[in-house]
Amino acid sequence: MTYEDDTMTRGSARCRVPEPTPLWDVIELELHGPSQGNPFVDVDLWATFTRGDQVVRVGGFYDGDGVYRVRMLAEEQGTWHFTTGSTALSLDGVEGDVVVVAARPRHHGPVRTDGFHFRHADGTRHRPWGTTAYAWTHQSPALQEQTLATLAESPFTKIRMCLLPKSYTFNADEPDRFPFPATSDGFDHTQFDVEFYRNLETRIGQLAALGMQADLILFHPYDRWGFADLGPTVDDRLVAYTVRRLAAFSNVWWSMANEYDLIAGKSIDDWERLAGLVVREDPHDHLLSIHNCIEFYDHTRPWITHASTQRVDAYRTAENTDQWRERWGKPVVIDECGYEGDVEHGWGNLTGEELMRRFWEGAVRGGYVGHGETYINDREELWWSKGGELIGTSPERVAFLERVVAESPTGVLDPCASDWDLPWGGVPGRYLVGYLGFSRPRYRTVHLPPGTFRVDVLDTWGMTVEALPGTHTGQVLVPLPGRQYMAIRLVRVEP
Amino acid sequence: MTYEDDTMTRGSARCRVPEPTPLWDVIELELHGPSQGNPFVDVDLWATFTRGDQVVRVGGFYDGDGVYRVRMLAEEQGTWHFTTGSTALSLDGVEGDVVVVAARPRHHGPVRTDGFHFRHADGTRHRPWGTTAYAWTHQSPALQEQTLATLAESPFTKIRMCLLPKSYTFNADEPDRFPFPATSDGFDHTQFDVEFYRNLETRIGQLAALGMQADLILFHPYDRWGFADLGPTVDDRLVAYTVRRLAAFSNVWWSMANEYDLIAGKSIDDWERLAGLVVREDPHDHLLSIHNCIEFYDHTRPWITHASTQRVDAYRTAENTDQWRERWGKPVVIDECGYEGDVEHGWGNLTGEELMRRFWEGAVRGGYVGHGETYINDREELWWSKGGELIGTSPERVAFLERVVAESPTGVLDPCASDWDLPWGGVPGRYLVGYLGFSRPRYRTVHLPPGTFRVDVLDTWGMTVEALPGTHTGQVLVPLPGRQYMAIRLVRVEP
Repeated sequence: MTYEDDTMTRGSARCRVPEPTPLWDVIELELHGPSQGNPFVDVDLWATFTRGDQVVRVGGFYDGDGVYRVRMLAEEQGTWHFTTGSTALSLDGVEGDVVVVAARPRHHGPVRTDGFHFRHADGTRHRPWGTTAYAWTHQSPALQEQTLATLAESPFTKIRMCLLPKSYTFNADEPDRFPFPATSDGFDHTQFDVEFYRNLETRIGQLAALGMQADLILFHPYDRWGFADLGPTVDDRLVAYTVRRLAAFSNVWWSMANEYDLIAGKSIDDWERLAGLVVREDPHDHLLSIHNCIEFYDHTRPWITHASTQRVDAYRTAENTDQWRERWGKPVVIDECGYEGDVEHGWGNLTGEELMRRFWEGAVRGGYVGHGETYINDREELWWSKGGELIGTSPERVAFLERVVAESPTGVLDPCASDWDLPWGGVPGRYLVGYLGFSRPRYRTVHLPPGTFRVDVLDTWGMTVEALPGTHTGQVLVPLPGRQYMAIRLVRVEP
Repeated sequence: MTYEDDTMTRGSARCRVPEPTPLWDVIELELHGPSQGNPFVDVDLWATFTRGDQVVRVGGFYDGDGVYRVRMLAEEQGTWHFTTGSTALSLDGVEGDVVVVAARPRHHGPVRTDGFHFRHADGTRHRPWGTTAYAWTHQSPALQEQTLATLAESPFTKIRMCLLPKSYTFNADEPDRFPFPATSDGFDHTQFDVEFYRNLETRIGQLAALGMQADLILFHPYDRWGFADLGPTVDDRLVAYTVRRLAAFSNVWWSMANEYDLIAGKSIDDWERLAGLVVREDPHDHLLSIHNCIEFYDHTRPWITHASTQRVDAYRTAENTDQWRERWGKPVVIDECGYEGDVEHGWGNLTGEELMRRFWEGAVRGGYVGHGETYINDREELWWSKGGELIGTSPERVAFLERVVAESPTGVLDPCASDWDLPWGGVPGRYLVGYLGFSRPRYRTVHLPPGTFRVDVLDTWGMTVEALPGTHTGQVLVPLPGRQYMAIRLVRVEP
């Protein structure tokens, strides 16, 4: 059925001609169409972009005040021709061209998986050293700005953040805005609060400018507004609207849920349906996963691009990274293995030393452990949820880890032949990092692979690198300081 | 076949009349019999002790120079009548009486299992806070004396020690004596070196005087003398001779092996046969187990009295204690979960903090973790193998743990209803110890069981106990210092 709009003339909607768009920026068509009734549910809109043989079909969305938008991520340079389709006559059949020009400096495009690791579209390695600030975009503008300033100074390349606001310990504040407009007795689930989404888009764009991935969590259990159990019709509308608005941002990752298994109202069938909807509505195939509490999701499901896990054992998590790579055949991102802090909950009272130990145990097994910070303060502004400032000891040590991984000839570490008490990761025969964790020997005998090596002693807590004098072949006795958190690095220097 | 001895008169052997023997001491018959040929293999000797309906059959052994001994642990007061049997005529049919009198002060008798825990024969609780000095009885007399002096000052109640000498890292010295007499080109496996055994008996007796259990390991893989692969005939002779000599000592525990699964020459059938021999030759049913390296033995086997385990995972061991109790239905003694020290090997370079964390994780789950110390020194005298001195930080903290466990109304801790991040052990509703391990919260909300409680904050590393003011019911917020290794103790003070 065609929506009977006020102009009644096909393709008559005003459409702002898109500016030439840099590669990996957002191409946006802005159309002015019908505003009567409830266009959020009454009108559907889409556009087809073509360039040679390439055809991309993109869903649009209503942005209030009679304004409709269709967004596409500019993934190829050149001239794209677009034609809109709509259930509203005036929005149907609008045509035009948009030129995609060279990328801005330091823009590398969306992140894709590359075996057990990640690369940007331009081939640059992405190493997801993520942090967590679930509800940072639901806080005051000043606090959001502070969060961005903190991130700008941090080593993190990804942040886990929720679409929906959070109600939980240290999360009592009522946000100003929600995805749905508030009514006198709740929310109107047939409309969306476009100001809420505009703020979210602004923040995602600001993260992109910092080179950070926005790992956007669509659902979570920590709710006092009814958002965790909206029913399938509203869930589907929320997901479709959100994905259509945000999929054109190069730095978006989708996480179906934080702790999917604590959301009582949704079954595995619901998650599969909702994930299918994300796949269908996202023409750009952004990274997509789902995060557990007690039970891992089946990360072999084809729509899951990488494993996003929470610890399922209080004692052993990051040490499972290599087994999980084998089990699921995908990159392993341990988004939650405990946070640095001092709250009463076991998920948030690790020392910086213990959190960094987990980062390294995961890294040398070819995975990526995530950060969070939960130090109690009088403002109840804990970074893990609200953002703000980081006061902990781990971020600068994450930067040190990043340096060690980045110096690998492949830019990543993969699990290598290991001793039972000393896991080695890197590139076999070329670049090997052995992590000693809580062990604190005064020396270690190392059997080098064939070739000549430089041998470095790394203090992962002290953030120092000391090379043994000379070069080495065969067997080498590496003196160590008898402290915890040391690593040994072997760098092949001659063939 | 009757052995043709030099007297040819049945029962003519001189027999020293045993003195009245305190309960739980060694009753010893000393007989003078044939010395020609090789009595170690040529002569068999036994005795039957009777008291009312009680009949105990005990094997004897040759002690050199024509002296034969039959030993029995005095397990019941009163007069016992004995009659010897032998394949040597003069040793056959010797009769007499021995009186068992009251136990010496502070002697509690052999240790038996009691559900998932241990008690001495007189009902006194035994808590096996064990240490390890594998080869201490194979060192110089001076070093053996130093070991005993160190043990006397230590909190340990059990020591793991090997019958056979050890050849391994930090174990290059050649012992003066071996179980078998040395020959020009090896050892005479048809005889035993009685001086070797006399020293061992002296040391076991000295341990008994200290109130310590001698957890005697019969076989182990770390060998350069061929003792790990003697073949079944010599193995059987060695086991029978050793058990006959030592089973009368109240403080002996048998461990079939250290790391049975690294002894290539013995199959499970061999272990079952050898364990059966121990059971047959030990009339006193001493505690009996077998210790693994990679693979646990099947601790449900009926001859195994308690599980004696080594970590099979480098990261998570003591945290499995409660699961292992359920799996095997027996007490769990984690004899080796890593040692405090700084050697290069992962089994021996834990901090004291990490070793004590493992002790506590095991204790609150109703088990017993063992100690060892492996600090490098110029003398290559590492406590874990040779004994000597203890310089580490954990022993005094083991004493603190002992105090907390001993103060339980049952004298033991059993696993209680626990939180995922806070295991509780003790006596349900009466005495509960929650261990926070590497977590370091600044407070913890605790829901008390019904009744009124004193709430103590224990610093398991600082060895302090601080009671919260007053008594408590219902829910209590326990302030904590934000340090690791804290515990919370709830003691019911009113019904």
